[in-house]
Amino acid sequence: MWDMVITLLTDFGLSDPYVGVMKGVILNICPASRIVDITHDIPPQCVDMASFVLGKSYPYFPAGSIHCIVVDPGVGSDRKILVAATDQYMFIAPDNGVLEPVFCSAGDCMIYQVTASDYFLPDVSCTFHGRDIFAPVAAHLAKGIRPEQVGEPVRQVVRLQERKPVISQNRITGEVIFCDRFGNAVTNIHFETLKNRGNFRIILGSYSIEGLQSAYSDVKAGQPLAIIGSYGNLEIAVREGSACSTLGINPGDKINIEFSISESH
Amino acid sequence: MWDMVITLLTDFGLSDPYVGVMKGVILNICPASRIVDITHDIPPQCVDMASFVLGKSYPYFPAGSIHCIVVDPGVGSDRKILVAATDQYMFIAPDNGVLEPVFCSAGDCMIYQVTASDYFLPDVSCTFHGRDIFAPVAAHLAKGIRPEQVGEPVRQVVRLQERKPVISQNRITGEVIFCDRFGNAVTNIHFETLKNRGNFRIILGSYSIEGLQSAYSDVKAGQPLAIIGSYGNLEIAVREGSACSTLGINPGDKINIEFSISESH
Amino acid sequence: MWDMVITLLTDFGLSDPYVGVMKGVILNICPASRIVDITHDIPPQCVDMASFVLGKSYPYFPAGSIHCIVVDPGVGSDRKILVAATDQYMFIAPDNGVLEPVFCSAGDCMIYQVTASDYFLPDVSCTFHGRDIFAPVAAHLAKGIRPEQVGEPVRQVVRLQERKPVISQNRITGEVIFCDRFGNAVTNIHFETLKNRGNFRIILGSYSIEGLQSAYSDVKAGQPLAIIGSYGNLEIAVREGSACSTLGINPGDKINIEFSISESH
Repeated sequence: MWDMVITLLTDFGLSDPYVGVMKGVILNICPASRIVDITHDIPPQCVDMASFVLGKSYPYFPAGSIHCIVVDPGVGSDRKILVAATDQYMFIAPDNGVLEPVFCSAGDCMIYQVTASDYFLPDVSCTFHGRDIFAPVAAHLAKGIRPEQVGEPVRQVVRLQERKPVISQNRITGEVIFCDRFGNAVTNIHFETLKNRGNFRIILGSYSIEGLQSAYSDVKAGQPLAIIGSYGNLEIAVREGSACSTLGINPGDKINIEFSISESH
Repeated sequence: MWDMVITLLTDFGLSDPYVGVMKGVILNICPASRIVDITHDIPPQCVDMASFVLGKSYPYFPAGSIHCIVVDPGVGSDRKILVAATDQYMFIAPDNGVLEPVFCSAGDCMIYQVTASDYFLPDVSCTFHGRDIFAPVAAHLAKGIRPEQVGEPVRQVVRLQERKPVISQNRITGEVIFCDRFGNAVTNIHFETLKNRGNFRIILGSYSIEGLQSAYSDVKAGQPLAIIGSYGNLEIAVREGSACSTLGINPGDKINIEFSISESH
Repeated sequence: MWDMVITLLTDFGLSDPYVGVMKGVILNICPASRIVDITHDIPPQCVDMASFVLGKSYPYFPAGSIHCIVVDPGVGSDRKILVAATDQYMFIAPDNGVLEPVFCSAGDCMIYQVTASDYFLPDVSCTFHGRDIFAPVAAHLAKGIRPEQVGEPVRQVVRLQERKPVISQNRITGEVIFCDRFGNAVTNIHFETLKNRGNFRIILGSYSIEGLQSAYSDVKAGQPLAIIGSYGNLEIAVREGSACSTLGINPGDKINIEFSISESH
């Protein structure tokens, strides 16, 4: 039998020992866990971003993986901690909407409130439940406890309001969600929205881009382009450069897609 | 039997391949090691900070773990390299005081000077003992050599002068040790010092905070608070914000705690 | 039998989930892989730097390791993807010269073009072959497919023009390749070039350094020195400081070594 995979997705950064200590706690309880970092660079307390990243990442992990998400502005308050179990994965996360992509996806999802303190560290701090609750409960799940052993089922959870693009007959208005390491501006416009809609022009501030390219190399180095990125969303990029700094794009910026008016009637 | 855990704590950062290469060296000698990063973002040559982080992290790891600490301004000089063995852990580190929390903690601690070059890489550079000595010796320890095989016992080691807070009847004067990723100002004032001392006011530059909160959510977003953080030390925080940037706090800043004068006599 | 080691060397950074997702893909296909990060902080699209780092890192890993390098400005174009197999290692990388140190090193090296899409993820994006091709092919290699199963042998590959130092009787003119985390300026002058050449002076902008030191501690704190660093190359350092910021050194800066004229005739 292979090691159980536990993934970690936090806003802890890697400069402090917080992530390392969570791994120590996990290995102490379940030495056979295989721990994988999704990322720890979610901007502090940014639940929206963590939720987006989670939704685009978790399906790539082996069935049976336990996903541990600690982006938790409410730590120490009476916010709940949830374990969600689907047919393929388990998730442990604060009840703040970060699990939205799990709730949205098809299929059954059982949700439990984590209350069984037998699975916590003996001393629970008021500022670092990642170490004191999330990590040990994830490790116990990896070791084989069933999700219903962590606490009672919950029916009502916090849902996240995704900012969806506004779609009309000739236009889609979306926004830039974030800029990645390469300076690509990732938008909230999914490629499905653009299918079978004919030609279009993308307008972003004072810039305008005609249609989509299928590879960065379709334009010259330094030139902007629109492309369906690896998240399946529309991205604005600059070949071998940074769209965000070259074009002055920031998260939250509006982006408009204008479709040619079809005249075939 | 489970894999042996080797932790790494360095000031190497993750941009250069230094940490990756240490892992290659370890896996070459002891393929069954499970390597965990505590952090590699100790500020360059900052032995004090490494020592603090080590002391707050190592007890969370499984018994039998080998902790490898390379914050080593004296690399290439005649400074010693030490292996310290307690009843639970082994440590390999330069003899520069970074192991202070290990020397301080209760219990026996045997210390050896690493001289057995059979356990080094064949070519030892003068700038990267992490790769050439620390990593291979840690891997040999994980593989089963006994600590006394690395060299002779040492009796005299470099001790670190911790900057402890000054405690008087009505006042504790401490300092900010560092700012973490969230902008929380971690002080050198341990919560034990504050126990059973009645009400107090915390003074930090021109700011003053009344007493402790038990959760960030006890104040409004954007408001400062004092809290016992996950290290067990007093921290100054701003809810959903950065205390260090909002309040202009820097490492080394003085912090005063003034206790109410008890009148029960 | 031990787990197969797969190393990752990319320009993806750790802020986005790109690296985490690659690890998910690998563990999905080959749960027994042991994944090690060499670094993910290669500057975006910087093939030269990735090639240098690869050459200095891969030989420290266990025989049998699979090195997966994704610094790939041509992603989505018709650039080839290569698997190279030496007697000790396998490599998967874009055909852009990043494997130059592998091609250069002695011994047989068989090279194949990756075309067998059975080993890819079912949907291949045009922007993230790291996830869709490199990671799954590396995992299948770790699981035991032979390199010739990924595609046909190739004879012609892109070679990288290393910028080598200019060597004359009394002078070597090299350059700074990059500055590391400690602010050490790593040059392209290998220590072999300096052997048996007598005394020399190093000139860098308006600074001049006499000869080499064998440890940082040979000079006072804050003083500059020249040393053979852990890459085996000449480095300019400042003891307990940053040569790059103190001396204003940037990658690409010229460095001159002037040898004393021998008079023994």
